[in-house]
This record gives sequence, structure tokens and C-alpha cells, in this order.
Amino acid sequence: MQVWKEYQAQHKDRFLQELLDLLRIPSVSADSRHNDDTKRCAEAVKEQLIKAGADNVEVCPTPGHPIVYGEKIIDPALPTVLVYGHYDVQPPDPLDLWHSGPFEPVIKDGKIYARGSADDKGQFYMHVKAFETLMATNTLPCNIKFMIEGEEEVGSSNLGPFLEQNKERLKADVVLISDTSMISLETPSIDTGLRGLAYMEVEVTGPNRDLHSGVYGGAVANPATILAKMIASLHDENNHITIPGFYDGVVELSAAEREALNKAPFDVEEYKKDLGVNDVWGEKGYTTIERTGIRPTLEVNGIWGGYTGEGAKTVLPSKAFAKISMRLVPGQDWINISELFKKHFEAIAPKSVQVKVTAHHGGSPYVTPTDSIAFKAASQAIESTFGQAPIPVRGGGSIPIVALFEKTLGLKTVLLGFGLDSDNLHSPNEKYDLANFYKGIETIPYFHKHFAELSK
Amino acid sequence: MQVWKEYQAQHKDRFLQELLDLLRIPSVSADSRHNDDTKRCAEAVKEQLIKAGADNVEVCPTPGHPIVYGEKIIDPALPTVLVYGHYDVQPPDPLDLWHSGPFEPVIKDGKIYARGSADDKGQFYMHVKAFETLMATNTLPCNIKFMIEGEEEVGSSNLGPFLEQNKERLKADVVLISDTSMISLETPSIDTGLRGLAYMEVEVTGPNRDLHSGVYGGAVANPATILAKMIASLHDENNHITIPGFYDGVVELSAAEREALNKAPFDVEEYKKDLGVNDVWGEKGYTTIERTGIRPTLEVNGIWGGYTGEGAKTVLPSKAFAKISMRLVPGQDWINISELFKKHFEAIAPKSVQVKVTAHHGGSPYVTPTDSIAFKAASQAIESTFGQAPIPVRGGGSIPIVALFEKTLGLKTVLLGFGLDSDNLHSPNEKYDLANFYKGIETIPYFHKHFAELSK
Repeated sequence: MQVWKEYQAQHKDRFLQELLDLLRIPSVSADSRHNDDTKRCAEAVKEQLIKAGADNVEVCPTPGHPIVYGEKIIDPALPTVLVYGHYDVQPPDPLDLWHSGPFEPVIKDGKIYARGSADDKGQFYMHVKAFETLMATNTLPCNIKFMIEGEEEVGSSNLGPFLEQNKERLKADVVLISDTSMISLETPSIDTGLRGLAYMEVEVTGPNRDLHSGVYGGAVANPATILAKMIASLHDENNHITIPGFYDGVVELSAAEREALNKAPFDVEEYKKDLGVNDVWGEKGYTTIERTGIRPTLEVNGIWGGYTGEGAKTVLPSKAFAKISMRLVPGQDWINISELFKKHFEAIAPKSVQVKVTAHHGGSPYVTPTDSIAFKAASQAIESTFGQAPIPVRGGGSIPIVALFEKTLGLKTVLLGFGLDSDNLHSPNEKYDLANFYKGIETIPYFHKHFAELSK
Repeated sequence: MQVWKEYQAQHKDRFLQELLDLLRIPSVSADSRHNDDTKRCAEAVKEQLIKAGADNVEVCPTPGHPIVYGEKIIDPALPTVLVYGHYDVQPPDPLDLWHSGPFEPVIKDGKIYARGSADDKGQFYMHVKAFETLMATNTLPCNIKFMIEGEEEVGSSNLGPFLEQNKERLKADVVLISDTSMISLETPSIDTGLRGLAYMEVEVTGPNRDLHSGVYGGAVANPATILAKMIASLHDENNHITIPGFYDGVVELSAAEREALNKAPFDVEEYKKDLGVNDVWGEKGYTTIERTGIRPTLEVNGIWGGYTGEGAKTVLPSKAFAKISMRLVPGQDWINISELFKKHFEAIAPKSVQVKVTAHHGGSPYVTPTDSIAFKAASQAIESTFGQAPIPVRGGGSIPIVALFEKTLGLKTVLLGFGLDSDNLHSPNEKYDLANFYKGIETIPYFHKHFAELSK
């Protein structure tokens, strides 16, 4: 619509400056030293929602980081879109690998470099600016509710109770989220499935104190060695995961479905080149697209133990630790998988060590229906601004709350993501392309328009 | 001798206070932030040698931490004992496990708690006080030279060149070192062999940046997982080390020698209880005494990679690291073993990762002759003050410089150690028993006396 285009062209620079201000707040939810920053970020989101035209805007306290709510109800008879996003970000370390400060956003080669630029500040903020556009041009075609939380990166543990307590307030017809990627601006795509997550921490204890590796080495189980052996045993020689029962219930795709999935444009040579690896790696019998989309995985996210400083220390450590997470697919339940992991990890520990397994958090996998009004609205919105229909793809990441929305609110979700796989999410030098940011702001009003029209 | 006993009884408290002052200097050689402290510690050692009566005392600079030299030549015709020790200490971390500050020595239950109390400040200082006793009572029976270095805990890399450049100055008949343990004050023992050491650091690189474990997990080799698999493969199911050629040349002991070795008092139940483990661990076919004394070993001293902070971060790390050291026995050369390790570790790396292997430092194993005059003198000295002859045992630790002394100076070494295995060397709450400290000061003058007499 011309009126949207004109309004957005006029306020383009301000939209960006506002986002940069938001990116300057180090709202790291995992690090309690940043609790004041997450609070400040929630307040900033509140201010922006009010300015954009939302009513009843509120920073809702939780036992953890607050949730920002706002709404614009123009007519209770019209359909309602619940926009979800998160203002919290991943920890920025390792800091020394950033080319500029993670919380000092820099625009370079048409990209915004900052922690949270793509995940998810840059993406949820497109919705705020799309909403502003609709309000300012007096063209809002449906009701909109915003729920922007601050604990997505640490497991959204307070979101479930919030949903339960606010069922009436959150009543809607669909949940709309921009927190995923598309293939490219030239080949737009929409994620139709997300993997679930089970995130564990393990602690292996050998001797009751750090020992001199000369005096005791060779005679006492070294927890770092044992942990390595235990981790090594979690994948077999075909890179299948060895936890008993892990694959039980995993929904296998039909040959036709797999064929369709593998039609997405993908160049393994380019993929290897981009990552700087000589070879891909993964479960035997599956392509890279399948490995990241439809198959469950197990990854070591962190490992530590013993002396890790400068130089040499001949210590036989008392303890070794690892953070291990599993991505889950339809048919797997994260609580069940967490329990299977714990049971297995405890079972394979040799007698000479002690093992403690803790579940951090998790979420169930989710597959979006592609025949819903909301998915069609999203597809048409993309077509309106990209000139072509999006390819439906299965995403590898997890947004555990998507399953939660279905369970608690009875709502389906549309994942209208504008990121790119190259955005360095959770990595140093996270970035979000300016072109994607503006394309999102341009596209989202069409979603509301088509959704309202198709709902008639 | 009554005159020694009286002198020592009179100055007992001062001896201890002087040691505590030395322990207050955080001379951590591995950490360059402590370079001023190691320098200050060398100066303090110099002052104490001068006060005790040594001549030509000098802090000799090296490209690393300095070496303190001092001597008392009473008659060039008399035998000369070269006392070696080290004033540097291991890093104190993990700091939170110390019950008192590592550099704020505390006396509790008859033990001195401080980093370096046993390894090696408390032990080399016994020699300074024994020398003072001999000087003050005018009973020095031989020439004594002191060489107290500051890089033992980081591989003594500047000691070799120093020995080469000071062959004349260091001329002696035997090297005497107190940097090992005995079984107990009730069952004195002398180490007759020490294992060698090869200390390696490995770096495994997967993708060229940290990745989102949801987007890339399952399709790209995770360096933490691969490192775990590589470490796991270094021991087979019998805990034999799998590096090709590793055991080549290892001197196997005869059945009679093994029987003698296993006669040393050792209670495996007490050992397990002390360490808080349900079971011992090690190479099949060997006892705990053999595993720590006559067999080579491989230990992970440190491992790290990915996110190790608070909470959860779903990262697929770009790199993972480990510090891995091997204890060597007669027949193994540390340079050869370092090369075998490097070659093997590079060979087992899958194509999907890159591996960098660096050798930190090392030293060759050493076996002391038990039929030498010096060993006899040590044995008689122990008998003079303990009332019984010491048991000869094979120690598990490494003092790489012992092989160096033989090679460069042509000198045999006697390891007259007064520590205990329970001293928490290289661990939090390192301690040295006051009784052992004073017993050492009491015993050492007898070594010089017997050595001078037996050399006649």
C-alpha cells in the first residue's frame, strides 16, 4: 500500500535509531549481573509500544525477568493477532572475538552488528514499527496484542504461569513470531516446524580434591577423562545417539516428504566454505537439510574441568562439567528425553566416579499447519512484498514457547522470520541486515491485512 | 649431635617465622601477573642464604625467572653437595576451595597451610636452616652449593642453559633435593625413581565461528564432542594407552622387583577413603603402587570449550582445548613421546575438524642408584634421626631436572624428601606438617656428615 510505503520511507532513519538504542541495553537474561539492564530494556519496550499507539501497556513482573504487554483493540468482532517476541539476549562471550562491542551497535556493509540485532530485538521491533505504520496511517485492519518477554534465552520458565494467569487478556486467533530465518531475500521461506530442546548440565566427580597428577595419575579415575569417554559414547560410529529410547516415537517422514524437503536450495560446498570446514558431519543416512530439520541431535554446548589457565599445571582434577543439549523432533517430549538422558548418563558412569545430572530447561518440538488462514496470510504477505511465494522449510532451532502457546492458549503460531542463517545468532558478531529489517517492516502490515480479509 | 639439637631448639620459632614470610610471597611462575612476586621471592631467598652464612650469593637472571645461587667452600679437597630446590609455586586456583588464603599461611593441627608449604619452599628451606645450623655450630663437614630456581613448575626451561654456562661453578659430587614425599614419619622412605613428563596442549577447531546449536547442530562437527572422542580413544578398555610406540622401550621390572615394590605398606581401602572414591582406576594387570610408580600414564589436566558460564547457551563451539600430560618411566624419552603424541593426535582427528598440538615442556624419567655413597649417606642420616632405615620406593611425580643434572653435570641425585602424599601438592589447601619440617632440618646435617665421612 502506497500510504504505508510513504510513511515508512519518511521515518526510516528514526526506526533504525530506535532499534540501535534498544540494542545498546545489555539485556543478558542468563547473567544476573545484568538484571538492572533487562529491567531497563523492558521499560524501553513499554515506552516504544505506547509511542506506537498501543493501549494498556504494562511491564508485568514475574519471578524472573518481566514480560511487556500492550494491545490495540479496535473492534472485538475483528480477528486478533498476538505478536510474541523477546527483548532478552544471549551472553556475548567470547568477547575477544567481536570486531566491535556487542552492545555498541555498528552499521557496516548494510548490516547492524550487535548482540540481539537478529535474535530477537531487531525482529520483534519490526512488529512495533509495522504497528506504528498501521496506526499512523489509520489502516489497522485487526486487533493486535503484544507480548514481549525477557527470558527466551534462559528457557521462558515464567511464561507458562503468565499464560495460565492471563488467558482472557491474551485471547487471540493466532500467534505471530519473527524469531527465525529465511533462506534469503531472493528465496523467501517460512519455517513450518521447529525442533524442541532439552538442555542438561552434568558434573562428574572423581577424587574429593584436585590431586597431583604425578603422585596419583594412573591410579585414580580422572573425571575429565571419564567425562570425555561418557560424551564420546553418546554417539555411535554412525553418529546415531545411543541413549536408550531416544528415538522412540520420532515421526519419520515419508520418502515424498523427504524429497520435497531436499528441494530447498542448498549447496554443500558453499555451506562448508562459509563454515570453514573440510567436511560436514552428522547422522548417517540423512542429508544436511534433514540433519538440521527433521532429525533430533545432541550437542556439547560447553565443557570444562581442571586447569584451563596460562601455562601448565599437573593437576588431576576433582571435577569435570559439561552442558549438553538435545534438539527434539515431533514425537519426542522434552521432559521424557531429559529423564532418559539423566538415567542413561548415570547408568554409564563407572563406579570410580560420581555423576550429577541437572535439567536446565527445554521445550517440545512443533510443526505448523500450512493450510491455516494464518499461514496463507503470511504466504500472501511475502508474495506482496517479495514478488514470490515463500518456500516452506523445517527450521533447526527451537522456540519452545510455540508448543506452550498451543497447549495453554490453544493457538497456532506463524513463524514469519526475516533473519538469515549467516546472522551469527548466539555467536560473536551477531548481525541483522538492514534490508531484512526494512523488508520485515514492509511485509508485516500485509500479514495483518490478509489475515483480516481471509478471516471474514 | 647435641650441639645441632640445642641450636635448632633455640631457633625453632624463628625458622618457622622465616618460612611463613617466604610463603607469603605469591611466586606463581606460570602466571606472568606474578612476575614481580617471583623476583621478590628470589631476593628473599638470597637474603636468607647470606644470613645463613653462604658466600657469593647471587640472583642470576635468566630469560625467565631468576635462579638463586650461593655456596660455602671450606676446603676444595672436601666433597661438595649441590642442593637444588625451587622457590616458585603452582597456581593456587580453584581459589574458592581453599579454607584460608593460599598466600596467608595458617598453622592448624600442627600443619602449615599455604601454597608452596611442601612444594617446595618448606622443603628447600630446611636445607637453608640445616646449613645455618652447621655454620653456627662450626661443624660444616663438606662444601655446600645452593641452586634454588624459579621455574620448576613451568618446566625449568632456562635451567639447562644455566647448567651449561655454569659447569665450573656448579661442580659437585652429588645433587641433594628435598622435593618428594616419604611414606610417613613412622615409615620413612626415599624415592629411588621418578617418572618423566611430557605436557601437551591440544586445540580442536570445528567451524570458523561459534554457531547456533539449533541451526547447525547435527550437521557440523562439534569440536567439544570430537575432542571428547579423541581423548576417550587414548585409553583402551584395559586402560592401556593407545598411542602407537608409547610403550616401546619401557623397562619392565622383574617379578622379584615387582614383589619388592609391592611390599611397601599400602592399604587400598584407606587410599579410597582418603580420596573419597568408590573404586581405584588404572591399567589392568598392575597394582596401585605399580600404576603410580613404574608405569607410564596419561592424564587430562584441563579441558575447556564452548559456554562455561552461568545458565544455558545453545552454542556449537568453534574450538575446544585440553591440557594432557604423560608421566614417563625409564626407557621413554620425553621428546620422542611428545612427538608420538602429536603424530597420533593429528592422525586420529576426523576430516571435519582441524587440530593443533603444542608441547608445553617435559623431562625424562630417572632412577637413582641405591648403592652409591650418597644414597648410603641419606639412608644413614634417616636412620640417625628416625631410628630406622628408609624403604626405597618409586615415586610417581616428576622432577625433570634430575635427568638434566646427570646429562649436563654428570651428577647423580639423592631425593631426600620429607613431604607426605597427603600434602595436597598442586591442590587447594596444600600443607606441610611442622613435624616433617623440623625433622628435615634435624636430618639434613647428618647427610652432610655421613657423606663427608663415607667419601673419605
